[in-house]
Amino acid sequence: MPVNTLGRELPDEIPGYGPVRPYNGQDVETPTGTRHAPPLKVCHPRRDKLLASIDEAIERTGLADGMTVTFHHHFRDGDILLNMVLDRIARKGIKGLTVAPSAFFPVHEPILDHVRSGVVTRLVGSCNGPVGAGVSKGIVPNPVVLRSHGGRVRAVHDGELHIDVAFIAAPECDPYGNVNGVNGPSACGPLGCADIDARYADWVVAVTDNLVPYPATPIVISQTFVDYVVQVDVIGDPKKIVSGTTSITTDPLKLSIAKLAADFIQEHPLFRDGVSFQAGSGGMSLAAMDYINAAMKKRKITADYIVGGTTRVIVEMLRDGTTKKVLDGQAFDTAAIDSLRDNPCHVEIPVDFYANVHNRGNVVDLLDFGILGATEVDLDFNVNVVTHSDGMLLHGIGGHQDVASGADTTIITVPLVRGRRRITPIVNRVTTVSTPGETVDVVVTDRGIAINPRRHDLIEHYRHSKLPIVKIDELHHIALEEANTLPPLATTDRIIAVVENRDGTVLDVVWQPVE
Amino acid sequence: MPVNTLGRELPDEIPGYGPVRPYNGQDVETPTGTRHAPPLKVCHPRRDKLLASIDEAIERTGLADGMTVTFHHHFRDGDILLNMVLDRIARKGIKGLTVAPSAFFPVHEPILDHVRSGVVTRLVGSCNGPVGAGVSKGIVPNPVVLRSHGGRVRAVHDGELHIDVAFIAAPECDPYGNVNGVNGPSACGPLGCADIDARYADWVVAVTDNLVPYPATPIVISQTFVDYVVQVDVIGDPKKIVSGTTSITTDPLKLSIAKLAADFIQEHPLFRDGVSFQAGSGGMSLAAMDYINAAMKKRKITADYIVGGTTRVIVEMLRDGTTKKVLDGQAFDTAAIDSLRDNPCHVEIPVDFYANVHNRGNVVDLLDFGILGATEVDLDFNVNVVTHSDGMLLHGIGGHQDVASGADTTIITVPLVRGRRRITPIVNRVTTVSTPGETVDVVVTDRGIAINPRRHDLIEHYRHSKLPIVKIDELHHIALEEANTLPPLATTDRIIAVVENRDGTVLDVVWQPVE
Repeated sequence: MPVNTLGRELPDEIPGYGPVRPYNGQDVETPTGTRHAPPLKVCHPRRDKLLASIDEAIERTGLADGMTVTFHHHFRDGDILLNMVLDRIARKGIKGLTVAPSAFFPVHEPILDHVRSGVVTRLVGSCNGPVGAGVSKGIVPNPVVLRSHGGRVRAVHDGELHIDVAFIAAPECDPYGNVNGVNGPSACGPLGCADIDARYADWVVAVTDNLVPYPATPIVISQTFVDYVVQVDVIGDPKKIVSGTTSITTDPLKLSIAKLAADFIQEHPLFRDGVSFQAGSGGMSLAAMDYINAAMKKRKITADYIVGGTTRVIVEMLRDGTTKKVLDGQAFDTAAIDSLRDNPCHVEIPVDFYANVHNRGNVVDLLDFGILGATEVDLDFNVNVVTHSDGMLLHGIGGHQDVASGADTTIITVPLVRGRRRITPIVNRVTTVSTPGETVDVVVTDRGIAINPRRHDLIEHYRHSKLPIVKIDELHHIALEEANTLPPLATTDRIIAVVENRDGTVLDVVWQPVE
Repeated sequence: MPVNTLGRELPDEIPGYGPVRPYNGQDVETPTGTRHAPPLKVCHPRRDKLLASIDEAIERTGLADGMTVTFHHHFRDGDILLNMVLDRIARKGIKGLTVAPSAFFPVHEPILDHVRSGVVTRLVGSCNGPVGAGVSKGIVPNPVVLRSHGGRVRAVHDGELHIDVAFIAAPECDPYGNVNGVNGPSACGPLGCADIDARYADWVVAVTDNLVPYPATPIVISQTFVDYVVQVDVIGDPKKIVSGTTSITTDPLKLSIAKLAADFIQEHPLFRDGVSFQAGSGGMSLAAMDYINAAMKKRKITADYIVGGTTRVIVEMLRDGTTKKVLDGQAFDTAAIDSLRDNPCHVEIPVDFYANVHNRGNVVDLLDFGILGATEVDLDFNVNVVTHSDGMLLHGIGGHQDVASGADTTIITVPLVRGRRRITPIVNRVTTVSTPGETVDVVVTDRGIAINPRRHDLIEHYRHSKLPIVKIDELHHIALEEANTLPPLATTDRIIAVVENRDGTVLDVVWQPVE
């Protein structure tokens, strides 16, 4: 089987996915095509966009066998809409759907029943928790396509992921389809992941539990893209947006790693007035931002902007003036939602702006620092955030790959030995590559900091640092001694997921693990 | 020659314009095509979008003979950019350009020299003052295409008006091309007319006199659409945005007409809580809004929204709570600019949102009242705002046709006899149809109010009103007695302009007048 530049074996073509364009490095080639062109429509004057029910929306949009429907994941595990809509579709006897939300969460486990009954035959998008476990058991007829946030937008933008009907959970909506996420009882903050669906889907249905008089403002998703509006009792539970991965860690080991990452950044030449960051949603990344915040205040350094996923830590930096602006694609807690609504320097951005590599410039490509987590990192600095060492597909990529690819310096924070099972994330070869090693610059562990050999400049810069700079092989050696050895991964010959790079080339595939 | 449903003779095809789709009434047919699809691009990470000069932008975008370039008109007669760019293009020896701004103003008269020298061979857009006079003299090789604001957006959106290079005057801009119009020394308010150019042009160049650190916010035109940024000394003079047509009238006759229009509205069934308006930029429309404002306060009626073009009158209504929101596509004075910047209920909208009939819903189609002016109105209620009775093309359509088509009740305010020459705007047949009569509901003059016979409901409603309701024929009779009679219009057999309806069908053509 041919291999890509990461040494990963990839078939030329994958049934249920199509021809494979192997990953060929980070030099993004200029594509030759055009943006996807949705159909022209006419909204007859004063035509009422309000429909009586989800059922009526399914009928009016002509939703039929084999089509693709999408949803956004801004309610994370508090989402109600996806299950609600799929139940109504299933009752109508529609089969063979592709469901392509910006992410599946544990709350979406009921989709596995729709897979078993043939209503859904393809999942496209990050599979967190039970949905991924279902995929790993091989119940989905076609491979899942895993894309980063930016990769998903690019695929829609370029016409690779064609959306028949986008259902958009709308925390505030008027009868003509202007939508925002900052007002109403189910406010979830930015709707950055829904923007691309609204702009490019053949049909767009806004579903709201908070219908307000025209015009609902701010206008985040515009009436110019929305075909129909449906009112329901409740679309999601914003309290469930917060999860273990979106609050600051309290684990002393993790705090010490976060501190080390912050110390590394403080010696970095880009740590100056005008610096920019993105911190992922992981507890260690957030803790690192908290340490950096303190260091910035002490050294009177001000950031030009921080890119969110946004949490209380970032909101406080904005409020204190430690950063001038926040560009926000999704909220991770209610402090972020409140700040987005009330602070004009907290600015909502669509994911197209955040990370699409086929528009005329995204923001992750401008970042100084990205601080991210990992499930595994290997000796080539490749990162895996999607599968566990037992081969189970349990997480999505999120913005990980985008930030790593874009930021000048991407820092991965991991403990050398993890959990009760005492396994190490520093491995010879990651189970699955979800972020290519050439985009990862630094790995910070509790036993030392490894700089990617490709970054001659950073190795030189830190040559005389008092920080514990080591080679990644050394970390691996320590890990081999201290961590438990895992049995070799046993897989079947069936591909259950395809992992794309943000430019649409294929990084890796996930083989179904032997149970 | 065939005639359209307005009785206007139109050739099947017009050299330099193409095949003619004759206007066929207000039932907008659903088009079969797709939105225009601009080329995919890649902005390589950290690539600098800043160029040294307009010249470099011309080179990098590959601007060449026969291409189409565009500009926005938000500085109105204070625009500097269009002349600046055309001068640089001319110096490079480029010929045969189509120049398609959202409007030409008197300040753009130098373009006539570029027409004479062959640099520019086609003008597309409203031609105000000397530019229109030049067109009327027949110096432009191809007919001008006159479109409403919404019609221009539709043409770009549908791919009928393909833009090679859009130059966008940017009052605030960062080095990566995020643009807004509310900050900086040349703040002009909304950039509603530039939005469509940014989204659909092959190349987009932001030209700014106020380069600020990344990210410039609010993000009105996004970095995702902008290829290059050029810094210049000055892009425009916001003081010249205000003109005679954008301030409230002080003429007692005109004030009395405005009062009558306001009285008519106060008896209208849609004058209730939740009412919506657009007032045009004319002095009488603004005076009418002032009277309506007073009436609303007295009767404790609150508007849900007013659509701008925005002036001080509207800003005060927002501040006083007489309207809950303002949706604003362009500013007509500095009060409007300040309010847009500072008041979150004063919301910027692109012209696509304002009036494009081929998206999924525009706002003019939701309006209760439009209060507009006219150069001529005829017995079929057709309105002319583009040519004078001597056949000279001297004005653009603006949003006139859009508002008339969209609003439930469109009210035209005109004096029965006008000016020192004592001519009447109430004519048997307008010189040029720029707004079809079936979209005009009421004509208010100092000698009475005429309701379009198509509006049986309004005729019935006002049957017992004490307002001076008359037939339009009666107004015409009075006018024939009191106004001077004009000599019949003498024209050549050459078409100098094509007037499109907002759906792209042709309302009328302008024949070159005999000098």
